Order: sequence, then structure tokens, then C-alpha cells
Amino acid sequence: MAFSEDAHEITADGHFQRQANRFTGRFGDQPGEFPVEAGRYRLIWSQTCPWSQRAVIARALLGLEDVISVGEVGPTRSDHGWTFAKSLTGLDPVLVVADLPTIYQRSDPSYTGRATVPAVVDLTTGKVVNNDYFTLTNQLEVAFKPLQKADAPDLYPEELRADIDALNDIIFHEVNNGVYKAGFAQSQVAYEEAYDVLFKRLDWLEERLGHQRYLFGDQLTDSDIRLYVTLARFDVAYYPVFHTNRNLLRDFPNLWAYARGLYQKPEFGDSTNFTGIKQGYQLLNEVANPYNILTVGPDEKDWLVPDQRQFN
Amino acid sequence: MAFSEDAHEITADGHFQRQANRFTGRFGDQPGEFPVEAGRYRLIWSQTCPWSQRAVIARALLGLEDVISVGEVGPTRSDHGWTFAKSLTGLDPVLVVADLPTIYQRSDPSYTGRATVPAVVDLTTGKVVNNDYFTLTNQLEVAFKPLQKADAPDLYPEELRADIDALNDIIFHEVNNGVYKAGFAQSQVAYEEAYDVLFKRLDWLEERLGHQRYLFGDQLTDSDIRLYVTLARFDVAYYPVFHTNRNLLRDFPNLWAYARGLYQKPEFGDSTNFTGIKQGYQLLNEVANPYNILTVGPDEKDWLVPDQRQFN
Repeated sequence: MAFSEDAHEITADGHFQRQANRFTGRFGDQPGEFPVEAGRYRLIWSQTCPWSQRAVIARALLGLEDVISVGEVGPTRSDHGWTFAKSLTGLDPVLVVADLPTIYQRSDPSYTGRATVPAVVDLTTGKVVNNDYFTLTNQLEVAFKPLQKADAPDLYPEELRADIDALNDIIFHEVNNGVYKAGFAQSQVAYEEAYDVLFKRLDWLEERLGHQRYLFGDQLTDSDIRLYVTLARFDVAYYPVFHTNRNLLRDFPNLWAYARGLYQKPEFGDSTNFTGIKQGYQLLNEVANPYNILTVGPDEKDWLVPDQRQFN
Repeated sequence: MAFSEDAHEITADGHFQRQANRFTGRFGDQPGEFPVEAGRYRLIWSQTCPWSQRAVIARALLGLEDVISVGEVGPTRSDHGWTFAKSLTGLDPVLVVADLPTIYQRSDPSYTGRATVPAVVDLTTGKVVNNDYFTLTNQLEVAFKPLQKADAPDLYPEELRADIDALNDIIFHEVNNGVYKAGFAQSQVAYEEAYDVLFKRLDWLEERLGHQRYLFGDQLTDSDIRLYVTLARFDVAYYPVFHTNRNLLRDFPNLWAYARGLYQKPEFGDSTNFTGIKQGYQLLNEVANPYNILTVGPDEKDWLVPDQRQFN
């Protein structure tokens, strides 16, 4: 996840342009692919970070908990980047390192970008093989199928892939990364552009979710995971910190009901920690929050109200 | 108004303690009082500032527009403090000065505090005679009665004064200044104390306004002016900038309807400029907003929905 931008990710006219992902290893049985093996990979993620929560949700839905282990960094970051500070020893117990940049550095000594999560580490080498959040869930859904639980849902059905890919692209540019474009804008124009695109798309999604439970009807898909991770952070992080404040998530009746319904599934809710999210977005930002105040609101218990949308 | 605190207004344990008002001149016909005369005083205020908007609202409700003129500073401030930057010439056309600190300085050369609004200037001397927002509206209501319009409402009726004073005191400490205590807190404990007191009091006011139109029944009083100015700034300033984010004003059904009903009266709405408020709280804050981004939301048109509370 990119909480704070690097200078090279800001264009001359103040727009945020996210860095490309360095590690795009693919999993499979073809030459050059990383073998699909239980126990071989460790997924590094953070509660704060929407990009990494996607993979954690997919892993839970697909029953890959015993196949791919997870290590958690955050919720805040040191000067060096993400650390394993929540661990009792300050080290990831499997990788025996204190921070994520160390793993990136040994994976590619020439790497100079931010060390981001998600990062899939190959335990046979200790190196990152994939930090490509855009395709990672799809790889868990397809390449890891042989290791999924027996009744795993098909989150990326072949007949829908083109539509899912198209919608994912829109959700990425306008929503997932759209909030960052607003929050990291260094000009009023860049901020307003991102804001307008974001809310226009949210209005469109609000309408779509008024007549179907999920983005593709009754069937939960990969696209729902992608939309959820941004919605879960909307009121606690993007509205206040990234200035996406036309309205709160809870002001969209359908999107809010949809998000609550997903949150109430353990595969989504168990990795959704609002305090962890707030800590990541609000704390250790000496510029905007010099006294390190963690906001108390908004009231989280509202997330427990059932999704009461009715469909024919 | 105190947008940014001075160092001497922060206690050792991180609490905000507002400076005392320097100019507490009283209006009347007793020795030492300033005579109640039409055309003699000029009220300096800012759209941003709740403390000064109170006097502007009282002036409009009482029909004192031709009696006391107004000069406007803001919406943002220079390094020197509030300026008359919105004026075509950059000067207040009556006082012929560029900024408020100049007026304070000539009123009391030994004054070292912030030059705040509201400030009532005596045009016969060019000096501030009153910057005491706490009693100013009461003086307009009582001392200026001979100059009020014929059918002026009694905003401070004698039989209710003790009750109004008691409620005003609570509203001041827990709501009007309560949001500042949260926003200017320099410790988590001080912030959470202010937050808890504020929302507990707002819940109490929400309940009270569920069974009566105004704070003292059917009759609009001085207390309503005081509560309104904070409510009008809640969603655009205090929720996002001062972290009073348990919920938005619009999530309180009664307080929100009450505030809208007042806003829709010209005496309240004409001096309520949400853009001016946002500019004052959000801009020219190099620390928290280095790129000077003005947020677009929240949607203001919701303020036009009628107050539909029904009472027996």
C-alpha cells in the first residue's frame, strides 16, 4: 500500500501517479512460473492497506489459509517503511526480519521504489515473487484452484472474466486509486478531477447495487472484493484524510448496505479492523497530525446492521 | 474567532484554554458605559467565525442593520491576522485600515493577544470597545432595545434570563468552545475528553429538540443563535478539521432539522456562507494543508430541505 506518496509519483501539474509494481511473478506449471505448492509462500499484508486486504479476503473465501501463510506489518510505518512491529519479537516469525524493505532489498538490490504490501514471499529463497495487487487475487482464484477447499466459490468464472476485468479496471482507476488521486493531489484542479470522477462512479455503483446483491448479480466475484476494500475505508480514512467528502459511505443506501453485508461475512470482516485502518491513515504523519491524535469516530457499531436490500 | 491557537493557550497537559476577552465595554446610559447611538459603532466580523456571526444574526433579528454597520474580514488570514482583503481596495471603507491588528493596536498599544472578531469599534475614536462575544448579543438584545425595529423579537426575555444564561454557559463550554478543545488538543487524552463531553451534550440537545421547536419552546432566544453558529460549521469544519467525528450533524435527526430551519430564515442564512467557512478553517494552514486544497463537499443543497419536525 502507498500511504504517503514519493516525489516521483507526483506529476508536474499535481496529479498522483502510482508507481508500477516491480514483482509480477506468475504462479503455475509453465516454464518461468512459480510452482503452486502448499506451504511455499507467505503473504505479507497490513490491516491499513486495501491493496493487501484483497488477497487476504480471497485467501479466506477460497480456503487457502493452510496453503499460504500470512505475516502482518503495520499498522503504522517507521522511517524505513513497513515493519513487523506487532510481532512479540519485532520480527516476522517465519522470515525472521524486522521490516519489509529488507525483504525487498534482498529480492532486488537495485530496487529503489517503496516496499509495498501485498508482497508474496517465496520461502525457499526469502525473496518477493509478487507484489502485483492488480492480478494477485486472480492468480489465487485460478492458478491455486487445485489447492482451494472443496466447495470454494468461483470468484472469477470464465464466462464473466472479460466483464470482471473491465469493471475491475474502472474500479481501480476511479475508486480504489481514485481516492488516492484526490488525497495526494497537489493542486486544486487535480483534487477536483479525482473527486468528480470518484463520486460519479460511486453514484453509478449505488444504482447498480439497488437491483442486485453483488456487482455481478447473485454471485460474489473478484470485483466485490475490490470494491469492498475501498468502501470499508471510506468513512474512517478517505472522507476525512483524503477529502472525498461529498458524503459518507453511510449516505449511499445501497452501497452502505452492500458493504455491511460483506463485512458481516467472516472472510471480509475478520481482516477489517477499523482501528488498524485509522491508525495507518492518521498516525505518524508529522505534517498533518503533529500531536498524533487518533480520531474516535465514526461509530463502528453501525456496521452490524444487516443488509436489508430486497430483490425480486 | 480563534482559528489557530497561540502557545499560551495550551496547558502543560495539552488542553486548549481560550484567551480572555480584552475589551468588555458595556453599552448604556450609566457612567462608564458607551452611549447607545445609531451610526456610532461598527461591528467587525468574519464569515468563518462563529463567535462573530452571533452578533450579525442578533443584529439582523433585532433590525439593527441601520444602527450598527458591519465590516468583514477574512475568510482567511495573513501572517498579521485578519485582514480586509475582500474589500475592493484592501481597506475597510469606513475605518480605512487594512487589518484588524492595527485597530487593536491603536485601541491598546500594550495588547499582545490575538486580534479577534467580533470587535465593536467606536467610530468616534476608531478604537475597539467590545470584543466580548460572550455578552455582546445580550447587550444588543437589552441595551440597544430603544433602537431595535418596532416588532423586534425579545431574544432575551427577563423571565427566562437565568435559564438562558445557564444554558448558554453549558453550550459555550461543551459545544461552542468544545469543538475547539477537541480540535486544538495536543494530547489524545485532552482530545477524547472534549469529544466525549461534546457528543454527550449534543445527544442531550438532540433529545430536547425532539419535542420543541427551539431551545426554550416555541420562542426563538439568544441560546438558539449560539447553538446555531456551531451547528452550521459542524460538517464543513469541525467534523473534518477538528476531528469531532462520531457522526455528522446530518446524522442527528432533530438537531439537523432545527439547524436547517434556522438556516432558512434570512437572518441566519444570509450570514452563513459555507464556502467562506470552509476557506477559513481549511486554507492557509501550511502545516495540515500544504497544497491549500479546499474540499468540495459536503453537499450544501441538503440545507434547503425543510424542518419537518411536528410538535403537539
